Amino acid sequence: MKVKLSQDVLQANEAIAEVNAARLREAGVFAVDMMSSPGSGKTTILERTIDDLSDRLEIAVIVGDVSTTRDAERIEEAGADAVQINTGGACHLDANMIRDVLDDMELAGYDVLFIENIGNLVCPAGYVLGEAERVMVLSTPEGTDKPAKYPAMFRTCSVALLNKIDLSEALGVDDQEFVEEIGMVNPHMKVMSVSALTGEGMEEWYDWLQDGVNSMRK
Amino acid sequence: MKVKLSQDVLQANEAIAEVNAARLREAGVFAVDMMSSPGSGKTTILERTIDDLSDRLEIAVIVGDVSTTRDAERIEEAGADAVQINTGGACHLDANMIRDVLDDMELAGYDVLFIENIGNLVCPAGYVLGEAERVMVLSTPEGTDKPAKYPAMFRTCSVALLNKIDLSEALGVDDQEFVEEIGMVNPHMKVMSVSALTGEGMEEWYDWLQDGVNSMRK
Repeated sequence: MKVKLSQDVLQANEAIAEVNAARLREAGVFAVDMMSSPGSGKTTILERTIDDLSDRLEIAVIVGDVSTTRDAERIEEAGADAVQINTGGACHLDANMIRDVLDDMELAGYDVLFIENIGNLVCPAGYVLGEAERVMVLSTPEGTDKPAKYPAMFRTCSVALLNKIDLSEALGVDDQEFVEEIGMVNPHMKVMSVSALTGEGMEEWYDWLQDGVNSMRK
Repeated sequence: MKVKLSQDVLQANEAIAEVNAARLREAGVFAVDMMSSPGSGKTTILERTIDDLSDRLEIAVIVGDVSTTRDAERIEEAGADAVQINTGGACHLDANMIRDVLDDMELAGYDVLFIENIGNLVCPAGYVLGEAERVMVLSTPEGTDKPAKYPAMFRTCSVALLNKIDLSEALGVDDQEFVEEIGMVNPHMKVMSVSALTGEGMEEWYDWLQDGVNSMRK
């Protein structure tokens, strides 16, 4: 019974996600679901991205949190439109929450829609939202064993941003070890090593984003 | 309907947890549920604790992971008995998983049973397991906003170990800020600042553990 319900929930979620995806494609918006552990730096990456690309791309962000509006405030201060979803305890966003938000947005005005998911390496992996791409952030202090320990998240995403490489020396870790551990779980994953704090490596991420935006315009 | 099911699941979990708690009390075992984000350092804290207290306390660890047996191997190498639970995708341990493991353990031989939960700041908070105390680990790289953003976890635990304080200088953070943010969410929480890497602050944690063990012997 429990498994049956769970499958029904996932199927309903996927059906709504397909509708969301069609609306976003129609409007020419490149939608990216950003997932990670708590504190890996999703919001800081988005703040810097918004700031650096403000002359090239129109960016909106849907910010998911269990509680507070702190991240949405940070996004707005960085200069992008932000919509906060508070899940009130739920551990992941779902497609229906996103549908409700899309209803109130003028999608055609945006090039990129980031969906900043709840900080959680487990549950969000199972729920598609209508995104074009799934990106996860892994920060160096979390350790190199995370891909093997949370394989579903690393397999469902096409890109990993290895963040906080400015701390690698203090941590005594080699960034290449992360790349190898990720490759053992998902050999197709594109890994970009970045520091949202110093800006190192961010250009490759911006190029990847621009390619995604261009693909929506074809 | 969904809410009803969820309440039934939680009530069933609590009933089993009470049975687990009674068995642990009967055997005189101080059981501690350890929760945190992925990569905050739960296993490293346990490794050091086991090593430092090996002449004083008999320690066993139930290690929960979505996948792999890496943490259980680390615990055994540190010198304690370890039982690995792989949840196969589930985002938290539950009381029934613990009951199954307790069935196979000689509980009377232990002073302390650590239950290392899945790395997840959301879901484990809702599921009691039969523990005497709930302890969470927050690591400095995760940022000071975690208590406000994940309040359920900070309210359900009596103790927070603020870990990786050896990194505070490199991160440019003041440990006192974490203490203040935690106090705003849970004024009753006992916060101990530690570095499992250098050993700084661990004595206070060991004293707290010893007090818990003593309380079971009364």
